[in-house]
Amino acid sequence: MFDLKHYMNQKSQIVNDALANILQNNQQGETIDVAMQYSLMAGGKRIRPVLCLAAAETVGGNPSDALTAACAMEMIHTYSLIHDDLPAMDNDELRRGKPTCHIAFDEATAVLTGDALLTLAFEVIASEPINNSTRAADWLQVTRIIAVAAGSRGMIQGQMLDMAAEGRRLNLAELETMHNLKTGALIEASLHCGALLAGANKAQLASLKSYARNIGLAFQVADDILNVEGNPKMMGKAVGTDRAKQKSTYPALLGLDDSRQFARKLTRRALQALQTFDSKAEPLRALANYIIERKR
Amino acid sequence: MFDLKHYMNQKSQIVNDALANILQNNQQGETIDVAMQYSLMAGGKRIRPVLCLAAAETVGGNPSDALTAACAMEMIHTYSLIHDDLPAMDNDELRRGKPTCHIAFDEATAVLTGDALLTLAFEVIASEPINNSTRAADWLQVTRIIAVAAGSRGMIQGQMLDMAAEGRRLNLAELETMHNLKTGALIEASLHCGALLAGANKAQLASLKSYARNIGLAFQVADDILNVEGNPKMMGKAVGTDRAKQKSTYPALLGLDDSRQFARKLTRRALQALQTFDSKAEPLRALANYIIERKR
Repeated sequence: MFDLKHYMNQKSQIVNDALANILQNNQQGETIDVAMQYSLMAGGKRIRPVLCLAAAETVGGNPSDALTAACAMEMIHTYSLIHDDLPAMDNDELRRGKPTCHIAFDEATAVLTGDALLTLAFEVIASEPINNSTRAADWLQVTRIIAVAAGSRGMIQGQMLDMAAEGRRLNLAELETMHNLKTGALIEASLHCGALLAGANKAQLASLKSYARNIGLAFQVADDILNVEGNPKMMGKAVGTDRAKQKSTYPALLGLDDSRQFARKLTRRALQALQTFDSKAEPLRALANYIIERKR
Repeated sequence: MFDLKHYMNQKSQIVNDALANILQNNQQGETIDVAMQYSLMAGGKRIRPVLCLAAAETVGGNPSDALTAACAMEMIHTYSLIHDDLPAMDNDELRRGKPTCHIAFDEATAVLTGDALLTLAFEVIASEPINNSTRAADWLQVTRIIAVAAGSRGMIQGQMLDMAAEGRRLNLAELETMHNLKTGALIEASLHCGALLAGANKAQLASLKSYARNIGLAFQVADDILNVEGNPKMMGKAVGTDRAKQKSTYPALLGLDDSRQFARKLTRRALQALQTFDSKAEPLRALANYIIERKR
């Protein structure tokens, strides 16, 4: 029986060590360094970097080849949380069990800390030691994949749609588009980059992208469900906030039962996408189940 | 006699066409696209991209080799202006003669538009067609140079220092450090990347970096002077704002006359750094003079 908890602890530790090392090399003892450390090392679940490393393993590669890309994904995820939490956006005061960046520091620092983490993500990717032409081209491609996923045709447009949706009810198709962009794009990029850096072939990449799209949406459906019935202490953030803000969510559109069923359907599809892989895909299979069973 | 006005018009046109083309390829008809277009095509002076192209010419290269890097510099400069103008930072309502992004749209859109331009800058760099290993490695190096210059050890730290300086008087050394980071780093990166992509050797790069550091600071001294005695109509933004905000500036520390003299000294040093170059450096020489003589 595959032990996901052990696997995630182990991989998170590797990612946390690598992130701490990146911050250490970058820091100059300034306030911006303190704020970057505060938000990046606040104990997130590290799902994107773990997916990135697991994708590398799944296609038979060495996860250490993808570690820098995994760290970049977490930096970009954290930057997006810092900016989304700003008063002008979601105006959240609690994140990962701690005051949000603009509460702990101030709004200007929070804007700049997000900017700095986004920029640092690209810096570490571009600082990979290049031994041969293939590697340079690969890391350039990783840069492009991440930029497309995080940019105005991906994550940023998802946040724009999320902001525009406040106070009005989206239909299911609109809700799915919003989540695919806001959360799905970066999750897909995490798996894509991990597999690419481990030398995946085209068929493997296509399977992993299908897996990514399904767990990406399942992840969001589960998030919506947790916002209704989760335990705020375990989650480190408030619950019931979506309803209070009249946000369009799966529970609001489908009800809780049908939302759970939809999440399970997406998980089944994700597992189907992994059929051609051998036991090295066990971490990804277990992660698909974890995503809808998690409590935080 | 070298005609700088003609040169700058010609190069700005090339840059504007390339930027319009980038936005065209990126846009999907969404609000974020309108906002990116609004701020990026608002008629800036395009000094950073022109410096980037001129650096490529100076070392004997083809400026078209550096055009994408030049565009990336302008996108990053524009993103930094959008974020600096936010209410939580400088709270400016006028930029390049038009309402700032958060006034024309809203604050959330302005944060995301800045994020999107920063991300797009890295995307276009990483999307350069790679014909051989050297090129891939070069573009990866350009990515790194830009990220370092724009990040928390460069431009972002400059803005942090600028924010922290409000209401207290900096000394000359602190003021210089702030400007070297806030403005100088990206100007230096513009020249560095342009020359690198044109195949510059180490001695050429060192000369151009020395030029960059001197005109970068001269540019800022001139900006401070313009904020005192400039014509708001020509500049497209308010004047007297530094004094109203009790910002530390060269005129405040040195007086207007000594500030002008300091700018001239920096310009002389910049010209000295170009001594080893032939007539292909005429644009850079003319630009050094323009920077302290400009009226906007």
